[in-house]
Amino acid sequence: MSIDWVWIKNGSVTSPMGFRAGGIPCGIKKTNARDMALLFSDCEAEVGATFTTNLIKAAPVKLSMQHVRGGPVRGVILNSGNANACTGLQGITDAKEMAELTAELMGVKRREILVCSTGRIGVPLPMEAVRKGIRKVVKKINHVSGPVAAKAIMTSDTVSKTCALALQLNGRRVVIGAMCKGAGMIHPNMATMLACITTDAAIERETLQRLTYEAVEASFNRISVDGDTSTNDTVLVLANGLAGNAPLATGHRDLGKFQNALKWVMQKLARMIVEDGEGISHVVEVIVQGAASSADARRISEAISRSPLVKSSWCGGDPNWGRLMGAMGYSGAKVREELVDIYYNGLIAVKGGLVSPTPRSKLAKIVAKRSYTITLDLHLGKGDYRLLVNDLTEKYVTLNKGE
Amino acid sequence: MSIDWVWIKNGSVTSPMGFRAGGIPCGIKKTNARDMALLFSDCEAEVGATFTTNLIKAAPVKLSMQHVRGGPVRGVILNSGNANACTGLQGITDAKEMAELTAELMGVKRREILVCSTGRIGVPLPMEAVRKGIRKVVKKINHVSGPVAAKAIMTSDTVSKTCALALQLNGRRVVIGAMCKGAGMIHPNMATMLACITTDAAIERETLQRLTYEAVEASFNRISVDGDTSTNDTVLVLANGLAGNAPLATGHRDLGKFQNALKWVMQKLARMIVEDGEGISHVVEVIVQGAASSADARRISEAISRSPLVKSSWCGGDPNWGRLMGAMGYSGAKVREELVDIYYNGLIAVKGGLVSPTPRSKLAKIVAKRSYTITLDLHLGKGDYRLLVNDLTEKYVTLNKGE
Repeated sequence: MSIDWVWIKNGSVTSPMGFRAGGIPCGIKKTNARDMALLFSDCEAEVGATFTTNLIKAAPVKLSMQHVRGGPVRGVILNSGNANACTGLQGITDAKEMAELTAELMGVKRREILVCSTGRIGVPLPMEAVRKGIRKVVKKINHVSGPVAAKAIMTSDTVSKTCALALQLNGRRVVIGAMCKGAGMIHPNMATMLACITTDAAIERETLQRLTYEAVEASFNRISVDGDTSTNDTVLVLANGLAGNAPLATGHRDLGKFQNALKWVMQKLARMIVEDGEGISHVVEVIVQGAASSADARRISEAISRSPLVKSSWCGGDPNWGRLMGAMGYSGAKVREELVDIYYNGLIAVKGGLVSPTPRSKLAKIVAKRSYTITLDLHLGKGDYRLLVNDLTEKYVTLNKGE
Repeated sequence: MSIDWVWIKNGSVTSPMGFRAGGIPCGIKKTNARDMALLFSDCEAEVGATFTTNLIKAAPVKLSMQHVRGGPVRGVILNSGNANACTGLQGITDAKEMAELTAELMGVKRREILVCSTGRIGVPLPMEAVRKGIRKVVKKINHVSGPVAAKAIMTSDTVSKTCALALQLNGRRVVIGAMCKGAGMIHPNMATMLACITTDAAIERETLQRLTYEAVEASFNRISVDGDTSTNDTVLVLANGLAGNAPLATGHRDLGKFQNALKWVMQKLARMIVEDGEGISHVVEVIVQGAASSADARRISEAISRSPLVKSSWCGGDPNWGRLMGAMGYSGAKVREELVDIYYNGLIAVKGGLVSPTPRSKLAKIVAKRSYTITLDLHLGKGDYRLLVNDLTEKYVTLNKGE
């Protein structure tokens, strides 16, 4: 990918033209922390979206899936602290009311408001607090408070996650802004993660949906925190067209440029999520190449990224390639032990299935780093895949023991 | 299953007639702990066996698979501390030499000796120590030292694992004895676990193989410690016929009785493995019923048993059924949220996908116990499955961080 865009310092969802946002505490969380955010476009925005593949979908996911199908939208109301999942018909009623009340106060249609929730499962929303919160947050949004909205969607995240970049399309300046929340429960095919991406680019609807899907595939679906996928995962891309470029569609000369930029934004967010994984101490990029097929390469990287034994050894800074071999062997992929090479940051540890002469002390130095790569070459074909994964730590268990 | 057998107090692999065993330290482990065992039958024994499904198989597994195919055997030489896995051609040579030297000293054929190794992967066996050990252990075996052999195959196990029972076949007393080692890396389809089962029953070869397979399926394949399966898993059943019963074969009136007893022995060992899982604090039986198919029931129980989020909540004694719903939803099984019931020790927590009126304090009391059941009823069909699983603890991570 050629880089023909620039990051915007302190960029956020309000960096593109015509987007307002804000965040407030409304009492869903017991801590007084911010727990409600609103993102709103000054005019209609086309929307691209991907939702969790989990069969147990939270009420706001079901509602937003329906709203997205109806055409352009105006905004997203988000809350943290409660997922509104496994809450039955009451949950649907509550999600609808969140959209309804927001729409009414903002003077738009209910269908034009999307809803995202994240937090504990199985507890009905405290609707009194939610109503009060919505009435308050609509007054707090403005064209610079993207970073505040990002804070309001955090759950076990330790830092808020935003970014933005600018690029030129037909000589027009176009901006893409973003916020997300992640932490635990992240695995290929999203997880308890919410991401809202805004852009002032004009883009045709089907094209936006396709680009969204492809960018998610290359970013959020390539990370793993703990192998769990959640009931609430949502990625939304809102494009309001205020940049005034010729609308992006198949055949547009700058389509590839925009597509790359969108991918960079999502990959940046995805990396932020892994680096802020619950209690983590190491981030490892697992690169599988030379597999019999891409599907096989994916199986291996996912087996490794799920193995508590492998991930514990990363935590301890142990270059334990035997556990990588073990995970590879039960992944379901084709493997010929005697052909396997394994590298840590490019330094060979295993050659043809056997320990290499590389001194263990050199490997130990690499796995002591906070971030490094492990490359597995199977020498069987052209299949490759890569995943960004973190380690399993005592702290992860401690953080996830209680509510 | 009707119970028509009795447990033998302090029973072991030497409880059946004609089996000798013993264990010694030979210096493979750096700690001076026992690390070599020999199990030997006074006469030829038919053998039933199952081996790891991991594509990366240790040298002793490859060798034993071959030896088993050749007909009756006489004994098994076992070591702990080194898995002789990912050791290439040298590993095969070393495993062969272990069988060869044992056979020579015991006056039998090499093909009649099976080999089991367990421990760290990727390090060649210290053959000087191994040879010395074999020369020593052949002199130490006797008809009562089964418990000593069980100690010599431990790795991160905290207790040695043996049992034995007696039953009547055609009015003859028949004994089944057993030892195994487990701890980490246990998941459906075995794991770094070795089990040797001995019996003085006479049983026809194909029947023994079938009963072994079925009993493993109902025991070792129904437990999960950390979702990993290893390079070395082996279950061996040796039957030397010294009880003098009419040989068990298809159609034998007491075949079912023997089959049940064999299953009980393996289930007892399997439970011992889970209860001694690395650093565990809770043992949970996950029972899935009413699934659309047994395959679906299995998918759900395996997704739950692999989820670090679910297993961390067990550690903390948190009746977090939302995470169970989440794991069910991404398991790949058919699920209709509004039909799902969830019980803790028979007490209803979720009814029709929604929180039940059962007070949380009552559920909290159950999940504080060391051992309890979780039942998920999907109300979709007749598929059921159950798995015995332990929790994920800080101690597990600590134990697996280093070598």
